Amino acid sequence: MMNERLSCQIEFIREVDKLKTIFRQTYLMDSTRNENDAEHSWHITLMAWLLEEHSTNKQVNILRVMKMLLVHDVVEIDAGDTFAYDEQGQEGKFERERMAAERIFGLLPPDQSEEMMELWLEFEQRKTTDSLYAAAMDRIQPLFHNYYTQGKAWQEHEVTSGRVLARIGFLETELPDVHSLVCQLIHDAVDKGYLLP
Amino acid sequence: MMNERLSCQIEFIREVDKLKTIFRQTYLMDSTRNENDAEHSWHITLMAWLLEEHSTNKQVNILRVMKMLLVHDVVEIDAGDTFAYDEQGQEGKFERERMAAERIFGLLPPDQSEEMMELWLEFEQRKTTDSLYAAAMDRIQPLFHNYYTQGKAWQEHEVTSGRVLARIGFLETELPDVHSLVCQLIHDAVDKGYLLP
Repeated sequence: MMNERLSCQIEFIREVDKLKTIFRQTYLMDSTRNENDAEHSWHITLMAWLLEEHSTNKQVNILRVMKMLLVHDVVEIDAGDTFAYDEQGQEGKFERERMAAERIFGLLPPDQSEEMMELWLEFEQRKTTDSLYAAAMDRIQPLFHNYYTQGKAWQEHEVTSGRVLARIGFLETELPDVHSLVCQLIHDAVDKGYLLP
Repeated sequence: MMNERLSCQIEFIREVDKLKTIFRQTYLMDSTRNENDAEHSWHITLMAWLLEEHSTNKQVNILRVMKMLLVHDVVEIDAGDTFAYDEQGQEGKFERERMAAERIFGLLPPDQSEEMMELWLEFEQRKTTDSLYAAAMDRIQPLFHNYYTQGKAWQEHEVTSGRVLARIGFLETELPDVHSLVCQLIHDAVDKGYLLP
């Protein structure tokens, strides 16, 4: 007799394999190719574990953050990747992604589907301690990739330092050490010609 | 002033980007290409969260398991991927991987380096509740990939059902529902000609 919950879970595990085929604008640090969403999700989940001590808020629940980061981009299986600096692409993005979340998370047993939907919505809204910390990981990782590839994706999209600084501004209160380091990298990137002033 | 711990952590985060370039024998479920270690690590970390209820041991610490799975393959940056059914490749494998662990985990501040080394050794030894559960995820995921690609990697390496069954035998006590499902898939794979009897 087949366990019905297990059957739904396997179906979901099979479906999310597609995240490995959703490519981002960011390049791997060796510049050889674009990064995909599954690799990105792995990297930032690991970062969340390692950088926790830099959070000013000692109430971060790292297990919740890790779960949030593992599934934060799963909606892109249906909705595709929208580049952070693509203003037109932002239109209707939330609605496309919400429909994707309902379809994909909906493959799971109801309790797990609900947990995942709540974590995803919390991440999108960036209002709680956990989601702000998670969002910080999601924003600094591509910045490292850009810096170490001499601004490859920044240059392709003519991104300016002002726009990068604006996207990471909220780190100043959440993760001041990390914010300070990242600001140094941004200024250095401008000096080296990786990023437009 | 640069925070020294943060500087080590960023160096590690940069180094492990290479895991995205270490390819496994397993194919993506759409059969288009081989899977890499970063994608695999993401997939099984997510699976660990979803399948916890099927563990007979209610003492599984899911945060520890997730950390273990995020870094279990990082050693392959130096030591390379060894196919599970490659007997010659198993020779000296542990020693190669231990040296890799020392170098790569050693980039981190000492306390984090030690935590990671302990988790990796625990995973390798498969004696504790957490490591047995983690190992189960690491073994069933490629099996799903093989099944859903009609045995692509199994056929390339002439793998037999006896060897696959032996590798997942320990699931019978740890995760009986999952073991039962996986055994069905293996028998079905033989019937369909995906896997040698």
